[in-house]
Amino acid sequence: MTTTAEPRITPRRQATRDRVLAAASEVFAERGFHGASVEDICDRAGFTRGAFYSNFTSKDDLVVELSRRHSEALVDRIRRASEREHASAEEVLRDVLAALADDSRSKERWLVLTTEFTLHAIRDADARRAWAAQQRRVRDELVLVVDEALAGQGLTLPIPTELFVRAAIALAHGSMTQRLVEPRSLSVGELERTVLPILLGVGA
Amino acid sequence: MTTTAEPRITPRRQATRDRVLAAASEVFAERGFHGASVEDICDRAGFTRGAFYSNFTSKDDLVVELSRRHSEALVDRIRRASEREHASAEEVLRDVLAALADDSRSKERWLVLTTEFTLHAIRDADARRAWAAQQRRVRDELVLVVDEALAGQGLTLPIPTELFVRAAIALAHGSMTQRLVEPRSLSVGELERTVLPILLGVGA
Repeated sequence: MTTTAEPRITPRRQATRDRVLAAASEVFAERGFHGASVEDICDRAGFTRGAFYSNFTSKDDLVVELSRRHSEALVDRIRRASEREHASAEEVLRDVLAALADDSRSKERWLVLTTEFTLHAIRDADARRAWAAQQRRVRDELVLVVDEALAGQGLTLPIPTELFVRAAIALAHGSMTQRLVEPRSLSVGELERTVLPILLGVGA
Repeated sequence: MTTTAEPRITPRRQATRDRVLAAASEVFAERGFHGASVEDICDRAGFTRGAFYSNFTSKDDLVVELSRRHSEALVDRIRRASEREHASAEEVLRDVLAALADDSRSKERWLVLTTEFTLHAIRDADARRAWAAQQRRVRDELVLVVDEALAGQGLTLPIPTELFVRAAIALAHGSMTQRLVEPRSLSVGELERTVLPILLGVGA
């Protein structure tokens, strides 16, 4: 179960993949990961199962590819914030925290889907291997961009960057999950805004 | 959907409740929250559905009651650690972190069950109300015991205790989830042991 993305992908193939992924996001949100079938997703996208399987190996593969796109967008956002000229560490951090704390409906859906997929991965060895590899890729990319941002500011972390990134991921997931269950008990991004600056030794 | 625990519960009734809850834990672990029926749980416990419903209102009610017992045990463990005479802040923290980082099979099962129930609560308004109330009770109890422990050590937190408790919960859940997907990538309790002392301003 590896993603079928190829080094050189034609625009037409890319458009097909985009449509399938957009349809999958909708169907997953409506019926849950387990409730959504490949057939449902094909119907929504207006493709045959043949077209689906020439682009993706499985339903699991869709989630891994969606995760790749989500993390690319997050890494881009952090990199843009950290490359702003003359921005202080506080300004960069505020910008990055705003990116993490994006509380749109699509981010909520994404949290629910990744939580469902994580439960699936805990029970299914193939999904677990694919999901573990994807989590590692996301962390590796985040470690790289956080290290770049720290170097740009002349800052050093009191803990290994990888553990900082793991903590940031746990806090962002935990905070959004707590908000989905108890919407009024915590404001958007409050937990990350409170805790991460202390770990960085920077006022936010 | 409130728990049916009564102020004065007879030993016999308590024994029935204990057996149903033990059976429920097993069946939830084997079939998942959604896969387990009240009938499965009654069969496992050797009780009739009548006996079940004279003790619990629903399957949801079982998870709330299991959560109540889990959090009572955690609060007791933290209180015992913090009440040890002549223990330094570092020793108390090490003991509390050991309690949080308990990585037994039963704790893994509990994480999976609470994650499934959280997804259920996000989609079901009754479950969400009950789960939100239970999460609030757990946090309130943890805030109380953390404040007692801090006062005993003459320490003050740089952030509100409630946010510290939320962060600790998010880190403990996130760390165990990351370990369930990628067992060898993080040692038990490593994330909590690294991050929480920084928030407390104490070496662990």
